[in-house]
Amino acid sequence: MADEPATPERRAVVLLSGGLDSTTALAIAREQGFTCHALTVAYGQLHRCEVDAAARVAAVLGAAEHRVLEIDLAPLAHSALTSSSLVVPKHRSMHEIGAAGDVPVTYVPARNTVLLGLALAWAESLGSFDLFIGVNVLDASGYPDCRREFVRAFEQLARVATRAGTAGGRFRVHAPLISLTKADIIRRGVELGVDYSITHSCYDPSADGAACRACDACLLRAKGFAEAGVADPTVYQPVA
Amino acid sequence: MADEPATPERRAVVLLSGGLDSTTALAIAREQGFTCHALTVAYGQLHRCEVDAAARVAAVLGAAEHRVLEIDLAPLAHSALTSSSLVVPKHRSMHEIGAAGDVPVTYVPARNTVLLGLALAWAESLGSFDLFIGVNVLDASGYPDCRREFVRAFEQLARVATRAGTAGGRFRVHAPLISLTKADIIRRGVELGVDYSITHSCYDPSADGAACRACDACLLRAKGFAEAGVADPTVYQPVA
Repeated sequence: MADEPATPERRAVVLLSGGLDSTTALAIAREQGFTCHALTVAYGQLHRCEVDAAARVAAVLGAAEHRVLEIDLAPLAHSALTSSSLVVPKHRSMHEIGAAGDVPVTYVPARNTVLLGLALAWAESLGSFDLFIGVNVLDASGYPDCRREFVRAFEQLARVATRAGTAGGRFRVHAPLISLTKADIIRRGVELGVDYSITHSCYDPSADGAACRACDACLLRAKGFAEAGVADPTVYQPVA
Repeated sequence: MADEPATPERRAVVLLSGGLDSTTALAIAREQGFTCHALTVAYGQLHRCEVDAAARVAAVLGAAEHRVLEIDLAPLAHSALTSSSLVVPKHRSMHEIGAAGDVPVTYVPARNTVLLGLALAWAESLGSFDLFIGVNVLDASGYPDCRREFVRAFEQLARVATRAGTAGGRFRVHAPLISLTKADIIRRGVELGVDYSITHSCYDPSADGAACRACDACLLRAKGFAEAGVADPTVYQPVA
């Protein structure tokens, strides 16, 4: 029996927070045939159980490698996700969450710029030109660094910022969820066999990782499962 | 005697490695009237005495604040500056150092993208729109992320990546050295009263911080002092 012709390995660096979106992005990257190098950044987020979720996801979804980088953004980037002196908003309506021009206090200044910068460093070292990020704009909190303009501007930057880019390599920032609703994302993940029970989305979990069911991340996630007609596997805190 | 009219404070975030260039950039930012918030990133560079130099420089040049952020790029970014398995080139000619298209092994993938991303996070948190970086292209090693195209692309990114940018604020990445020779940079710094003896440039210093006099950084620095007609205050290792 003849050997299969060798297909050159296509490597991608996938930013993996351990949440629903980045987990789906990883599943899509794998489906597209990429060998996935998952990068989780412990940036000082108070909801550290996200990082544990990322490790579970990377293992279950068969990432070739998973690295966790520690970097404490809290002294630099003022946000409710990094400072307990700011309160994570609760029980906002979908109208409030999606209000144009309203960026909530859970915004972490320049976070995705830093995360993609780190992903770019690793990609260039690996000889990869493909970065994946699970940003989306429809069922989202209106963060500026989750929009298409941001993704395109980072691609432009990557081409002039790197040795590989200036040598003619074209970095691509894949944002496969960018125009999907949360329900679409969940349907796509379910098609790809994702078990969302191992993911974590809540901004303000209890010590054992149970979700608060009231922050924007919980509300958007629960709405997504409801709209997709998929049973919500999230472990919630008991109602007080 | 009437009070002086209040001038609104202009804050800048200045990337400060502790080397000759970033020290001069800090002196220029101060001269331009900015209140300077100096940011040093300990990114896993083997020449850690650079970080000590940055602390001296921030104190002597009167930075309002100096923060040192620890982030280990070594596992992500393959470079002679972060890995002892790669050898820092020595005794290259100026022709070799400046050769077009030749990016040396001391290039750290995406380093300045990560550094400016961190500076941007801090600037936005401080309400500042001004970032300073001491990149230059004339007497330099040909790193892609030291060029004008890179600086302009990062400014474009900053405007779409941030809450402050999308609200209409215009971030500026100041690169006041970009078209200066090393001798010009030194002359400018001397005019501004910079004492270069407290700075550190060498990529491969001895344990006590003495410069090797043979790496690209040493050679460019020594050439700059010679061409500027300024006595070189660098402490070099004894010639073997």
